[in-house]
Amino acid sequence: MNKESARKKAKELIAKMSTEEKVSQLLYEAPAIPRLGIGEYNWWNEALHGVARAGRAAVFPQAIGLGASFDPLMVRQVGSMVGQEGRIKNEIYRSEGRRGIYQGLTFWSPNINIVRDPRWGRAHEAYGEDPFLTSAIGTAFVRGVQGEDPEHLQAAACAKHFAVHSGPEATRHGFNAEVSEQDLRQTYLPAFEHLVKDADVAGVMSAYNAVNGVPSSCSSYLLRDILRGEWGFDGYTVSDCGAVHDIFERHHFTDTKVEAAGRAVSAGCNLNCGSMYGYLLEALQKGFVTEEAIDEALENLWTVRFRLDMEGDADGAQTVDRWLRLSPKLYRLEEQAAEESLVLLKNDGILPLKNPERIAVIGPNARSVSVLEGNYHGTSDHYVTLLEGIRAEFAGSQVLGADGCHLYKAQIEAMSHVPDDQLGEALALARACDVTVLCLGLDPSIEGELGDASNEYGAGDKPSLLLPESQRRLLHAVLDASDRVIVVLLSGGAIDLQEDDERISALVQAWYPGALGGKAVAGLLSGRVNPTGRLPVTFYHNHQVSWDFEDYSMKGKTYRYFEGRPRYPFGFGLSYRYLQLSEARMEDECVHVLACNPHSAAVAMPLQIYVSWNNPSLAAPLRQLAGVTMIRLQAGEQKEIRIPIDSYWLSLVDEKGHRVPHEGEILFTIGDHQPDERSCELSHEPLLRLSFKAD
Amino acid sequence: MNKESARKKAKELIAKMSTEEKVSQLLYEAPAIPRLGIGEYNWWNEALHGVARAGRAAVFPQAIGLGASFDPLMVRQVGSMVGQEGRIKNEIYRSEGRRGIYQGLTFWSPNINIVRDPRWGRAHEAYGEDPFLTSAIGTAFVRGVQGEDPEHLQAAACAKHFAVHSGPEATRHGFNAEVSEQDLRQTYLPAFEHLVKDADVAGVMSAYNAVNGVPSSCSSYLLRDILRGEWGFDGYTVSDCGAVHDIFERHHFTDTKVEAAGRAVSAGCNLNCGSMYGYLLEALQKGFVTEEAIDEALENLWTVRFRLDMEGDADGAQTVDRWLRLSPKLYRLEEQAAEESLVLLKNDGILPLKNPERIAVIGPNARSVSVLEGNYHGTSDHYVTLLEGIRAEFAGSQVLGADGCHLYKAQIEAMSHVPDDQLGEALALARACDVTVLCLGLDPSIEGELGDASNEYGAGDKPSLLLPESQRRLLHAVLDASDRVIVVLLSGGAIDLQEDDERISALVQAWYPGALGGKAVAGLLSGRVNPTGRLPVTFYHNHQVSWDFEDYSMKGKTYRYFEGRPRYPFGFGLSYRYLQLSEARMEDECVHVLACNPHSAAVAMPLQIYVSWNNPSLAAPLRQLAGVTMIRLQAGEQKEIRIPIDSYWLSLVDEKGHRVPHEGEILFTIGDHQPDERSCELSHEPLLRLSFKAD
Repeated sequence: MNKESARKKAKELIAKMSTEEKVSQLLYEAPAIPRLGIGEYNWWNEALHGVARAGRAAVFPQAIGLGASFDPLMVRQVGSMVGQEGRIKNEIYRSEGRRGIYQGLTFWSPNINIVRDPRWGRAHEAYGEDPFLTSAIGTAFVRGVQGEDPEHLQAAACAKHFAVHSGPEATRHGFNAEVSEQDLRQTYLPAFEHLVKDADVAGVMSAYNAVNGVPSSCSSYLLRDILRGEWGFDGYTVSDCGAVHDIFERHHFTDTKVEAAGRAVSAGCNLNCGSMYGYLLEALQKGFVTEEAIDEALENLWTVRFRLDMEGDADGAQTVDRWLRLSPKLYRLEEQAAEESLVLLKNDGILPLKNPERIAVIGPNARSVSVLEGNYHGTSDHYVTLLEGIRAEFAGSQVLGADGCHLYKAQIEAMSHVPDDQLGEALALARACDVTVLCLGLDPSIEGELGDASNEYGAGDKPSLLLPESQRRLLHAVLDASDRVIVVLLSGGAIDLQEDDERISALVQAWYPGALGGKAVAGLLSGRVNPTGRLPVTFYHNHQVSWDFEDYSMKGKTYRYFEGRPRYPFGFGLSYRYLQLSEARMEDECVHVLACNPHSAAVAMPLQIYVSWNNPSLAAPLRQLAGVTMIRLQAGEQKEIRIPIDSYWLSLVDEKGHRVPHEGEILFTIGDHQPDERSCELSHEPLLRLSFKAD
Repeated sequence: MNKESARKKAKELIAKMSTEEKVSQLLYEAPAIPRLGIGEYNWWNEALHGVARAGRAAVFPQAIGLGASFDPLMVRQVGSMVGQEGRIKNEIYRSEGRRGIYQGLTFWSPNINIVRDPRWGRAHEAYGEDPFLTSAIGTAFVRGVQGEDPEHLQAAACAKHFAVHSGPEATRHGFNAEVSEQDLRQTYLPAFEHLVKDADVAGVMSAYNAVNGVPSSCSSYLLRDILRGEWGFDGYTVSDCGAVHDIFERHHFTDTKVEAAGRAVSAGCNLNCGSMYGYLLEALQKGFVTEEAIDEALENLWTVRFRLDMEGDADGAQTVDRWLRLSPKLYRLEEQAAEESLVLLKNDGILPLKNPERIAVIGPNARSVSVLEGNYHGTSDHYVTLLEGIRAEFAGSQVLGADGCHLYKAQIEAMSHVPDDQLGEALALARACDVTVLCLGLDPSIEGELGDASNEYGAGDKPSLLLPESQRRLLHAVLDASDRVIVVLLSGGAIDLQEDDERISALVQAWYPGALGGKAVAGLLSGRVNPTGRLPVTFYHNHQVSWDFEDYSMKGKTYRYFEGRPRYPFGFGLSYRYLQLSEARMEDECVHVLACNPHSAAVAMPLQIYVSWNNPSLAAPLRQLAGVTMIRLQAGEQKEIRIPIDSYWLSLVDEKGHRVPHEGEILFTIGDHQPDERSCELSHEPLLRLSFKAD
């Protein structure tokens, strides 16, 4: 139902509840209240890139890969499929009387934190390092998930983690992120602001960490003043799981658990993922929270539940029929999204591969299903690993697969102390084949979340941007054995191959590409797929990441502030075929540009519009992405493209955190890639430049 | 080279060695001796069902599945492929200068222990519970691996674990198996005897356990008197890994490590998998071993190394070419072996499946690669899981896969305490589909070897024959939801589904079926494959396995001594099509029988010949398998089949362990299945009976 009716109904319901009943409804495992006709509901559900942890579901590329698509329209379709499949799965579970965790419709996705540091283990859950791109992709995803029918909330998205959250994982429960008002408003908050204002996101999750001394889950500055006051948010808020407990136990911000629970609700944290709100009755008695604050939280929560209409009868058989009718669309979009997520970083001409007789497909990620999934994933029933994809794609070639080495240990299976136990085989295969595809990188057991990732790398963060040593040795040795080596990196972010980067023939960044990732990568290798993905994060040289991991100042970080020359810059990526651009102009707050496809096949190319400030009155980023769109032209087609530019992204933030419309000259750079020397050199396309004087 | 030349060369070499050099060569990681032109060699290599732990290799069905084929000729081909691929892999590693563990040609396979107890975690490494079948399959495997060219040992097999070894795993390092001479000779030793005498197996591995008080690795009764004295073994012996250490540390059979090392060599244990023979110099000084005993051990070892001709130059590229030419044969045999390993235990007529519109493929083993591999496995580059196989086989149907439950935990991915978190989805799918294929069972992380298996089930043995609870709940609930349920069990041995066995429509025992297992299972379901596998172990009712796991008496155990009615008997298995048998007669120590194929397609059927004794003079088994062969007839073909019967299997063993030719009347039962009421009833074919009076 619509918001207004839902809120009215929520108020009526709350008026009938006892205080004990009220408190019970503020926990994520909200119990049934039979006397009020209320069923139980579990608020904890996940759908980062497909309905997650609930069994069979589409597995789209991990979020960072969706960011790499630079294609909000496609991501909106992904979101829409997630919402539709989520509703189907919810009905299926309900038809069997199940209302447990991961079976509901309040998805705690997306993760729109800014990838401030490439070492962060959860970086792959986010859309990259740029506030604009994160806003654009995140908004598209949320709109897709929630649908756009004001009378019907398809599913509820939730923007997380609010705010200023990007590692380290190991200390996250007690960490205090110190951030200037300028960085807060210029970098960390814009995506949240846009998801609230532009996508009407139904939920916001508060982070584990404190921001400038106040734990996020009891920060009325964040949860009331900014979120509801400035931005007009009217949805529900939820603590990250265990975050209310952290207020007392790890941040030592309150003297008791009771106070922590009370202050969290008072500060505007509506729902507790955890059990601390069990202390709320005591907190009420002790004056740490008022019944009005509890009612307010309840109203926000129950408005969302009513908007979701989850109480009707569900017919399992009919729902499975609906699911099967949806399946072909899900498959097609899994494949398209995977294709669009791939970033071709280097190609000396070896790609596309021309009828190789023998292909060696080597590496610990060649036959891994885990690297297709990433984290917070569903379970596909039609995974295609890289090895399987390449074998199917190159049906006329002999394809030889081998692990070559363990993902990060010295040996694969040897019981005695022989490092690189299967390296010899890998080298012999590389020597004997026309071309070697090395499938390297990390996997979600190496980079991830505190508690999820369990290995020598520690809490989930990465110690550096280098490959694990076993893989460095494999890469180096294979390069000594063959001069036709293509590296496919499966990882959530930047990997620096160091000097070996110069020796490889081609480099594909494939992230965690989802169920059909192997088919997509194989299509790129064969040329069936024209790569269009672009980097949503800077790929630094390892030595360039020398700042303190706990330093939340943006100075010198990300393409917007980093003045060095990275290995591969933000926005970079090669295609086999490009569109030609010309005649750029600014009109009605839109960039207009003429795009032409000179090829005899349909071609897509992402258009990137960067702004930079001439003599800015305030400290400004070096440049700022302010527009993206995927241009798709038929063979020979020519078309004028119009991209609206939101003046928000032309404005700058002063030291006190006030956003000030910029008044000087702004330079627009329009094309593929950002205006960086190296990327220009490699883009094969001149970038159009446009100067614009705001008034 | 041939044995004689090799032994001569070995003697010459040993004569040049210092005592220190001699000792160094008795360790499994034998170092190079440059002054004698000797390279390093690692004796530890595995090839239980394909070259194992050495990277890319064919993965044939786990040993128990090879046993289930009842087809020694096919298993001989498997052995031959293992030997050929092993040699290729050895040359590939040598071409890269690698001589580490798992890269050599002395394979510590097969495992020919008798599956005395279905709870044994390593039961799936063996060929079943019957001495004859184990001898026949084991002999075929070894002949295949080693080749039959007296001038050239293709690879060296090794019979293990000598002797009387079948669990428990948890206590194996200090366990004393108490066994009567009668059981020893009638049950535990025959397979070893046959591998030595009929297959000329190159190696024998001594077990961890003691036998009647003497640790196997220092038992001169086993290693000298029986093995070399009685059977004429002239190969090498090796301790199981760590077993020499166990003599002192776990069996407390010697006072020092030095004595343990010395006594092991003295007793005839030639090679040490471990490091204890590092004490041999000290043991020499202290008189626990003589230099002659050391020379004898060296001679056996170096004779095998010279017979294997592993020192020449290896050309990697040419070897990879050879490998690729072999690959189609490897693939075909992987598929054939998988097909022949499958045992159809129940079919109410649902199979073969007739054009189902929708198939639900549910269960924790549906998309598992680990269940294809079993343990001691190689790595395939073309696995086909059950789900993948079924999807490909039923291309005209909608195939929906879901895990349904975790293999043994209460939940798959839920963070809160909701058991059976994905059961609801499984039930909805089962209701919405024409038929449900439930892929249940164990995997090598649940049943296996001490140290390998790491789960709640303990050391690798099974607590019972029941499915893990999570799967029992899934099975039961799915049966409530659908009346068309086919269960495919992937496990290394007997599973008792209890009352739910009565409710399922069909039951397929698939063991751990190898790389192409999913394709083979799908072929059985569609009818493309006519199942011919038969049980190599008794499938007891769970309550029937009530004896002490440590009791090594054969009384009441296995089909030869068990008088109850099991759930499915040894030798049992259904086919879609059978051959007709008639006109059985005994002539020239052979059974002759006329086989006829009344069908319009080629049909194969395993022939089983059991003997039983009328009024035996000695304690005799209830019955004894004494002949197997796979009969293959073209459509309409009729053929007289001739199966030699070795009088060994007609003889009986007295209480002192002497094998005595039997003199009374012997009843031969010839057909498919053993002469058990239930199996006869189900076989659809009358069994031919033949009475024979030996003189």
